Amino acid sequence: MLKRYLLAPGPTPVPPEVLLRMARPIIHHRSPDFIPVFESARTKLQWLYQTKNDVLILTSSGTGAMTASVDNFFSPGDKVLVVNGGKFGERWMKIGQAYGLEVIELKVEWGYAVKPADVEKALAKHPDIKAVFVQATETSTGVYHDIEGLGKIISKHPDTLFIVDAISALVAHDIKTDEWGVDLMVGGSQKGLMLPPGLAFLSVSEKAWKKAETSKLPHFYFNLKKEREGLHKNQTNFTPAVSLIEGLDEALTMLQKEGLENVFARHEKLARAMRAGVLGMGLHIFPKENASNALTAVKAPEGVDGQAIYKTLREKFGITAAGGQDKLKGKVFRVAHLGYAGVFDVITAVAAIEMTLKELGHTVKFGSGLAAAEEVLAGK
Amino acid sequence: MLKRYLLAPGPTPVPPEVLLRMARPIIHHRSPDFIPVFESARTKLQWLYQTKNDVLILTSSGTGAMTASVDNFFSPGDKVLVVNGGKFGERWMKIGQAYGLEVIELKVEWGYAVKPADVEKALAKHPDIKAVFVQATETSTGVYHDIEGLGKIISKHPDTLFIVDAISALVAHDIKTDEWGVDLMVGGSQKGLMLPPGLAFLSVSEKAWKKAETSKLPHFYFNLKKEREGLHKNQTNFTPAVSLIEGLDEALTMLQKEGLENVFARHEKLARAMRAGVLGMGLHIFPKENASNALTAVKAPEGVDGQAIYKTLREKFGITAAGGQDKLKGKVFRVAHLGYAGVFDVITAVAAIEMTLKELGHTVKFGSGLAAAEEVLAGK
Repeated sequence: MLKRYLLAPGPTPVPPEVLLRMARPIIHHRSPDFIPVFESARTKLQWLYQTKNDVLILTSSGTGAMTASVDNFFSPGDKVLVVNGGKFGERWMKIGQAYGLEVIELKVEWGYAVKPADVEKALAKHPDIKAVFVQATETSTGVYHDIEGLGKIISKHPDTLFIVDAISALVAHDIKTDEWGVDLMVGGSQKGLMLPPGLAFLSVSEKAWKKAETSKLPHFYFNLKKEREGLHKNQTNFTPAVSLIEGLDEALTMLQKEGLENVFARHEKLARAMRAGVLGMGLHIFPKENASNALTAVKAPEGVDGQAIYKTLREKFGITAAGGQDKLKGKVFRVAHLGYAGVFDVITAVAAIEMTLKELGHTVKFGSGLAAAEEVLAGK
Repeated sequence: MLKRYLLAPGPTPVPPEVLLRMARPIIHHRSPDFIPVFESARTKLQWLYQTKNDVLILTSSGTGAMTASVDNFFSPGDKVLVVNGGKFGERWMKIGQAYGLEVIELKVEWGYAVKPADVEKALAKHPDIKAVFVQATETSTGVYHDIEGLGKIISKHPDTLFIVDAISALVAHDIKTDEWGVDLMVGGSQKGLMLPPGLAFLSVSEKAWKKAETSKLPHFYFNLKKEREGLHKNQTNFTPAVSLIEGLDEALTMLQKEGLENVFARHEKLARAMRAGVLGMGLHIFPKENASNALTAVKAPEGVDGQAIYKTLREKFGITAAGGQDKLKGKVFRVAHLGYAGVFDVITAVAAIEMTLKELGHTVKFGSGLAAAEEVLAGK
């Protein structure tokens, strides 16, 4: 038997409490049983989002809510700015283009974070930009974009929405939705929220609802205005993934017990320890700046294939991490410390990387990464 | 403690085997662990659908696949015929209209099945009709439309797609997708398939794929061509609801063990017993013809509010059935015998209705419905 560990940047492990809650007999979404569960979950989501805005709950993966962020608010020809610093930035571009928006690309070299001043320049050059789309954590590169800094700039533009894909950043990063002026923020169940995939979340500001009134794009399954009407009666427009909503309520209860500050501090520390471990064994992380608290993208050392590292971690050590995507395939591997994650997940990951490198013929001093990780983990 | 029973036409009860399978640790959808599970589930789905066509698996509720049935195949202005015999027929109309199709309504009085000859007339009158949309079981009225009869007519029209919402009919009715020429058939997880809500299914014929090539409607999350490409590599386009797909594989294994003919025979018999029970206690069913095997819509007797029956069943007897929808609210209540359902679910339902009627002051002879149901259930 090879004991298995899931250390991928989504899906992430689901705590036993949540698995068991979801294994309860199904309740009917139009019966009174559903009301308190849904109300509890959606209210706790507002707490997690740090928002007074409604947070809609959609039955889809995160890309469903990304799609809804376009086809419920814009019209063909609307000019929008997309920060494109990786595979998920590209996804924003593709969605905008699929719906006929005029997409202006703000290209950011993979591994770097967007400079808020560059967004400011783009907005000055194109004052008719209707929205800025960005990732909080760009999962393909492991970079965190400066949402606070971007918010300060975009909030000066009353006709420009600030739209953040926080699918992998939520829970791992302290993102102050209302204070920083985020108009739409997308989340997903299978990342920091410690649930299986199948639910997406979307907070919507009043400014965004106003823009929605003029949208001319067709939509039906993702009809956010109707979702909002339903939400206030603790209902969804169509049959929701009931068991996942039960799990959501349970997972949010666990996060509330821990406290928001502690949740963020835990993720920050685990990420710091992971980076220390990587550096300690003589490897390098891929991000040049703003490494995310959700996952660490590690550069494969000279002469070692990143995909071989991914494969050896899985097959020899039972650890499912992630390889590189698109142009980073073979060049990096990615390890998450996200959601249901603790000290010994980082220790496990660092030890596994050390042993995997040795297995692949790379010179590595056993314990060098581990000692560096311990220094961080034993500290404050 | 009030022991609870779920007898609603979706969600339906989930068998313990499936609940436990879904409570297993999460597997990663891009790892090799996922491949055999997905391949097994999608292959068994083809068996259930009686089709050689691909059956796509989408993370959404059934309405997501209904939406995809429009926005992946048609263009604004396309003329389509919708059989509208209830709330879900109306939904096809609304989706078509949301995407700018020219929707011709074939109105069918609630409680009746569409006459295939009326569809034939409409197709003769409008030879440019690009598709006929219908429900297999119209869940709001409990009527089963004659899919075989419709297929015979529509298959004579090489430029007309036959699109069937079989969300509540799948498993309960023998629908021969390929033999009857169904081009798109929509299914959902939370009905006959005995799963929680969160997955939708869509079989797509070659004729439909050809039509898709000319579609001009925008879409992104539901991109069926990309789903097909992925399917053949046992992948989904975006992160799927992994735990539900595990449950799907388990539920389909259970159905395969029973055998397709036995599955349909069981549902036919349970439905017949339910109707006998209803008539035996002096009530009437709502359908005037073609009562569905999935659920029974029962007319509330003179002087008794259908919603009071729904409420008493729930609050006094722990049974979650369903009330009437829209114009049938208060006039009918609906009881399912769908999916994980057996002899004593019908006995339970009939007894509960007898006792509920007495509770509400209606004259009913205890045992009268039960005896009639037993006659059927004890027979072949």
